Amino acid sequence: MSRNVLLLPGDGIGPEIVTEAEKVLRKVNDKFSLNLNFESALVGGAAIDEHDTPLPDETLAKAKAADAIILGAVGGPKWDSRPMASRPEKGLLGLRSQLGLFANLRPAILYPQLASASSLKPEVVSGLDIMIVRELTGGIYFGQPRGVRQLESGERQGYNTYAYTESEIRRIGRVAFEAAQQRGKKLCSVDKANVLEVTVLWREVMEDLRREYPDVELSHMYVDNAAMQLVRAPKQFDVIVTGNMFGDILSDEAAMLTGSIGMLPSASLNSEKQGMYEPCHGSAPDIAGQGIANPLATIFSAAMMLRYSLNEEAAADAIETAVSKVLDQGLRTADIMSAEGRKVSTREMGEAVLAAL
Amino acid sequence: MSRNVLLLPGDGIGPEIVTEAEKVLRKVNDKFSLNLNFESALVGGAAIDEHDTPLPDETLAKAKAADAIILGAVGGPKWDSRPMASRPEKGLLGLRSQLGLFANLRPAILYPQLASASSLKPEVVSGLDIMIVRELTGGIYFGQPRGVRQLESGERQGYNTYAYTESEIRRIGRVAFEAAQQRGKKLCSVDKANVLEVTVLWREVMEDLRREYPDVELSHMYVDNAAMQLVRAPKQFDVIVTGNMFGDILSDEAAMLTGSIGMLPSASLNSEKQGMYEPCHGSAPDIAGQGIANPLATIFSAAMMLRYSLNEEAAADAIETAVSKVLDQGLRTADIMSAEGRKVSTREMGEAVLAAL
Ligand SMILES: CC(C)[C@H](C(=O)O)[C@@H](O)C(=O)O
Ligand SMILES: CC(C)[C@H](C(=O)O)[C@@H](O)C(=O)O
Repeated sequence: MSRNVLLLPGDGIGPEIVTEAEKVLRKVNDKFSLNLNFESALVGGAAIDEHDTPLPDETLAKAKAADAIILGAVGGPKWDSRPMASRPEKGLLGLRSQLGLFANLRPAILYPQLASASSLKPEVVSGLDIMIVRELTGGIYFGQPRGVRQLESGERQGYNTYAYTESEIRRIGRVAFEAAQQRGKKLCSVDKANVLEVTVLWREVMEDLRREYPDVELSHMYVDNAAMQLVRAPKQFDVIVTGNMFGDILSDEAAMLTGSIGMLPSASLNSEKQGMYEPCHGSAPDIAGQGIANPLATIFSAAMMLRYSLNEEAAADAIETAVSKVLDQGLRTADIMSAEGRKVSTREMGEAVLAAL
Repeated sequence: MSRNVLLLPGDGIGPEIVTEAEKVLRKVNDKFSLNLNFESALVGGAAIDEHDTPLPDETLAKAKAADAIILGAVGGPKWDSRPMASRPEKGLLGLRSQLGLFANLRPAILYPQLASASSLKPEVVSGLDIMIVRELTGGIYFGQPRGVRQLESGERQGYNTYAYTESEIRRIGRVAFEAAQQRGKKLCSVDKANVLEVTVLWREVMEDLRREYPDVELSHMYVDNAAMQLVRAPKQFDVIVTGNMFGDILSDEAAMLTGSIGMLPSASLNSEKQGMYEPCHGSAPDIAGQGIANPLATIFSAAMMLRYSLNEEAAADAIETAVSKVLDQGLRTADIMSAEGRKVSTREMGEAVLAAL
């Protein structure tokens, strides 16, 4: 049985890093006879330039037909002055929403070989391994009504709506409780229940779910405190679950604790475990086209895809082991370079992983 | 001409730390003939217990009549299960809103004597001195409509509204540009203009203001990136301006970079420079009543009050110099204790500042 993998390179460094991930995937495809077919399509700024829309129908159709998707990154200054509805980001948000990818899993892991890259003291972050479960198709990202209106006073007011239904909260809660069951059995739900009604409901639904997962220890934390605790003592966390906006902020903060955001993958899943896999970092337009971007977050995303959407554990393990070997050899792209490392380009890093496979 | 200072101890460690700040204020009142009158009133949980409301009319009347307010902290588990409208936090939010305290200034400063308390590497945080300007009476904290409603499907939906008018953005923008003029002349406005319409308007108004402050270098950053950059390289910032919710999160994150949130004061000002001054930390119910809380954030808040609302620069300087001396002497409350320090209680710390004055 063959499976379709859609490659969406996107903008900025996206094409360079997806190229390396594709090579790695083609290699394990042969080695483990995975029977994967590869297609590619345009999204984001690249699609705007070609088709005047960030999410062409053809791309959406291919995405729906795919078993899994690898996305590079979208956006860049070239398209920053466009109106909200036709910006590159709408391509990404449209894919999340149209494919129902409500569960965003973002690990923040400190790779032992890169311990010194963190801006935090070694004792605070050594061995760090957190999983952030972010709701991805609801909350203030998609809430209606939204816009900018003219008030009677003559001045303008911008407004957005932060909303969640019980069922939206429950389904992301289940994903998080299940992730905690597979890991350290500790789940921290982050909200602002002392101020926002929508998160009072969030907390209530998480509390309800507790009974179904008696082996998981559930706690609640206000978002401001969570932002502090991640800096103070990040190892207190196992799995964190939160809404779309708080998850955007906290997952980036958590990723940066490791000092190597160029290493961190993410998965966005729907209820059929169909998924889109992308690096946690952005399109980095400032270094695009220079061949110096770190392809490892995208290569790790490919491994995550094999594990979560395609059930190919052995191939996923092989990729992760190969990356670990390459790091042991001291190979480093510019973003993770240190005194002892040997600096390599995007392509050299990709080739090294291939060789280690 | 006499001035009225209202003391609102609030909950948890609030009464203990406000007591020490009051002693310090009484001492500089005599020494510098400031002609301050002191009153006190109940707010938060303490007011709920006594009057069944977090913000009694009498407290609000006294607050309106005061030239400046010192607040300890509000909230605690005792009142956590109360409905949103009658929680301790509503006392604080009510004061902010009723007094029009729209400008919240939160410095994140690393005191050289406490450099080792930070969880970040010394080179990343040494000399850190950021000012966060947070909008405090608008945004999603106060936006209407809000609540939990029953949908036709039978399930409940929680919702809040994130809204800002041009004039609300402009007045907090001015405060931030002026703060930057007094400091390093760099202002970073934080938004999520790639997703939220309300922050597209925010960015537009900040851009408009740029022309009035040609000596200030304005930049824009998405909130997820700001949360990362604060961890990666916090010293790149001088003044940050942002809305109520993002400001709540980022100011706590920034405060924690110093490792000594027990040291950081804050000011909340209205357009007449009337102000409420409070520590950045919360009511810490877990250590309340034990006499071990750090009173220095509240004592620094008193100094900020003298400077911003009462125009008593010399008295403010005297307090700050006294605290610095006490830190030089090695006195430390538990939260900032280190190998070389001498551990003291809340009261001993207060007495030491008095003695150093
Ligand atoms: C590009 C942007 C719309 C996106 C988001 O805010 O979700 C990004 O920051 C992310 O976290 O994937
Ligand atoms: C207590 C709470 C309502 C408050 C807030 O969210 O504004 C606090 O976190 C703060 O930052 O002063």
